[in-house]
Amino acid sequence: MQARQITLEPLTQEAFQPFGDVLEAAGDPDMIINEGKCGRFHDLARLDYADEGGRAGINIFRSEARPLPYSFQLMERHPLGSQAFMPMSADPFLVIVAPDAGDKPGLPRAFKSKPFQGVNYLRGTWHGVLAPLVDAAEFLVVDRIGGGDNLEEFVFDAPYTVIA
Amino acid sequence: MQARQITLEPLTQEAFQPFGDVLEAAGDPDMIINEGKCGRFHDLARLDYADEGGRAGINIFRSEARPLPYSFQLMERHPLGSQAFMPMSADPFLVIVAPDAGDKPGLPRAFKSKPFQGVNYLRGTWHGVLAPLVDAAEFLVVDRIGGGDNLEEFVFDAPYTVIA
Repeated sequence: MQARQITLEPLTQEAFQPFGDVLEAAGDPDMIINEGKCGRFHDLARLDYADEGGRAGINIFRSEARPLPYSFQLMERHPLGSQAFMPMSADPFLVIVAPDAGDKPGLPRAFKSKPFQGVNYLRGTWHGVLAPLVDAAEFLVVDRIGGGDNLEEFVFDAPYTVIA
Repeated sequence: MQARQITLEPLTQEAFQPFGDVLEAAGDPDMIINEGKCGRFHDLARLDYADEGGRAGINIFRSEARPLPYSFQLMERHPLGSQAFMPMSADPFLVIVAPDAGDKPGLPRAFKSKPFQGVNYLRGTWHGVLAPLVDAAEFLVVDRIGGGDNLEEFVFDAPYTVIA
């Protein structure tokens, strides 16, 4: 079966808005603190941990590289919580998301991050696995810690391939 | 008045434990996810946002460099919430903390981070301002968003100076 191709898009707040938040220090800071030497870009993510006993937690994910062309069949979503990722280096990563189409992912889109950008996936957003493009990398992850079934996976019949 | 000197210590979980958590991917991951290609180091921080209408938020702080020798007189604490910092680069930063000594900071200690380490200050912990050692830098910050007075500052009579 022929692979279906997805072309990379730049990661911008506007394009990504239906799926979540781009975490970045854009424009002027919201506050200047620490004797004038530090800018605070305030409250950048729509964190959401449902009302089922969950709470925010901090984790580190360490992932192997997923260079282009990158083929995938699996997407996942977390019905009980948002999930935020910030790389600990300036290397880009791949952000694959899809709108919901009747409890399964619709047509996926693929964004490439710029240095010092992260993302926050809204609760319930279909997304691909963590995919640093260059090298293995570590990410700070802020997501829901708690009980309940917070993972749904979907496997497409045929792979999609992300190209530059 | 003569400056008082503080010698840098390495940032380790054990030494830092009274003040907070070191955020790092140490040892083996707690879980392997994403088809075997990603390790999750799970729930690394004692997040704590009091019971006064606060919630977790994600912010970015962009700070000027604070190279050594570094002199300071100001410390601060947040009575209503923990505060976590993760640098977006591998450059080290300075972590200054002090035990409480009757509603003011006692003798400060200064830790130097290793690459891919962050910290989470426990709620109410006296700490210095954000201090990247090499260049201006951006940090992902997870702290409390909400009302109330969440900042106490204390200015020492004389400066402390951190040396290598």
